[in-house]
Amino acid sequence: MDNRPIGVFDSGLGGLTAVRELKKVLPQEDIVYFGDTGRVPYGGRSPKIILEYAKQDIAFLLSKNVKCIMAACGTVSSILPQELAQSLPVPFLGVVESTAKAAATATKNGHIGVIGTAATIRSQSYAQQLRKQLENCVISARACPMFVPLVENGYLGKGNPITTAIAKEYLQEMARQDIDTLILGCTHYPLIADIIGDVVGTKVTLIDPGRETAHRLREILQQKGLLGQNTGNTEYFVSDSVDSFRTISNRFLGEYAGGSVHQIDIDQFQLSFPCPQ
Amino acid sequence: MDNRPIGVFDSGLGGLTAVRELKKVLPQEDIVYFGDTGRVPYGGRSPKIILEYAKQDIAFLLSKNVKCIMAACGTVSSILPQELAQSLPVPFLGVVESTAKAAATATKNGHIGVIGTAATIRSQSYAQQLRKQLENCVISARACPMFVPLVENGYLGKGNPITTAIAKEYLQEMARQDIDTLILGCTHYPLIADIIGDVVGTKVTLIDPGRETAHRLREILQQKGLLGQNTGNTEYFVSDSVDSFRTISNRFLGEYAGGSVHQIDIDQFQLSFPCPQ
Repeated sequence: MDNRPIGVFDSGLGGLTAVRELKKVLPQEDIVYFGDTGRVPYGGRSPKIILEYAKQDIAFLLSKNVKCIMAACGTVSSILPQELAQSLPVPFLGVVESTAKAAATATKNGHIGVIGTAATIRSQSYAQQLRKQLENCVISARACPMFVPLVENGYLGKGNPITTAIAKEYLQEMARQDIDTLILGCTHYPLIADIIGDVVGTKVTLIDPGRETAHRLREILQQKGLLGQNTGNTEYFVSDSVDSFRTISNRFLGEYAGGSVHQIDIDQFQLSFPCPQ
Repeated sequence: MDNRPIGVFDSGLGGLTAVRELKKVLPQEDIVYFGDTGRVPYGGRSPKIILEYAKQDIAFLLSKNVKCIMAACGTVSSILPQELAQSLPVPFLGVVESTAKAAATATKNGHIGVIGTAATIRSQSYAQQLRKQLENCVISARACPMFVPLVENGYLGKGNPITTAIAKEYLQEMARQDIDTLILGCTHYPLIADIIGDVVGTKVTLIDPGRETAHRLREILQQKGLLGQNTGNTEYFVSDSVDSFRTISNRFLGEYAGGSVHQIDIDQFQLSFPCPQ
């Protein structure tokens, strides 16, 4: 048994959809969440800058004595080198691998769609992982850069006309290509899963990385004897003002809202051991 | 005469709409532009972080030996303390003051609309400047957070259905309130001025801060004997990868596109004299 908290980070508050899933799957674990709201979004930035930010995010979580780290951010999970993940003193889990496994299991016709930020799609990380899991799969990938601002500005709810129009633009071609499984490769997308589902049709299985990764994390903690027995307390940290945290976090966490929130200076955190580049 | 370049900075590439106006109004001036693409957008961040970033942006431009500095960023212009601007070794010009003057001159019924990012509207900087210029004016202000992602993702062109639908949502109430002048208080908005104009109607005069500030800068340089006679060369600097610069800059600069582009590490620049907070 290990009662240290689980560490979760994301470029902003989107990763709270992964916290919500963790709270469902591992209700007795304490969680420390860091959202880099002072530097969000990572999606459009260069891999070098994203990697630098990710190292600081990890350094902060390690300073909170976490027993494992989950990168809820699709962008970070896509570009963080495996050597760096393996050099960390605690288990590290990105969203890409477990999500690709779930998609490979779900598909029947071997045709899988992937949507995400520009950086996630450009990195081809989901495509690479999918091909490892299912050699002959066909992958249709598309960046959907408008989905994050639409979610953040509340264009939510089944049938929302603006989000539906943009979702059609992004996804109708993919649906025509006969995908039967679609990876929602960005933390924000589960909040518009209803709209996405309407556009791609009911025969397409939607894969939520937060949910899949929460399940995978439970397996890892179980295997390593690291499961905890706590009250399920969550502490939130952000790198910009905490002012709008409540409103936004309620949207992302739903019934799992609650917990204290603090602002930190993320620039003060650096990994204190040499990292592979 | 002073042949040093004019320095212009913005949180990203939106400030290029101001460069385009400068090139029309001051074709014989060289320009050094810095776009903080590694940390864009400033709009949703806290005043403390925005101020810190602005100081670094200014420090970079000073290192390029500029003769004056223009903050094309509405957010920075809104929160930079006057004492800091006055402590700089070269003239500093934000977009807010000249824009408010132009709006106060343009209005006939004294009812002025202001649109911008959440931070610009929250700061009430345009409202304060407008009241200085025109004591009894009536101001209707509204944050339009979807306009920046819409412009950056190319939802442009008269009649674009998505941008028109969102513009109606933001602006129809303001139009009903009988404004006769509207400040486009964010660098990106001039690119959808046609759509905004259609929604608010032809009797509303649109005020473009980049254009007004370019005119004001010419006056200041003239008064101080700082006008130059150069070839109108422009050098661009960004804090993230230069990869997508050409595509985006062409959209913002139109026929004034061209010039070299370099990536810099903005964190290396700090103002080297004590600043008022």
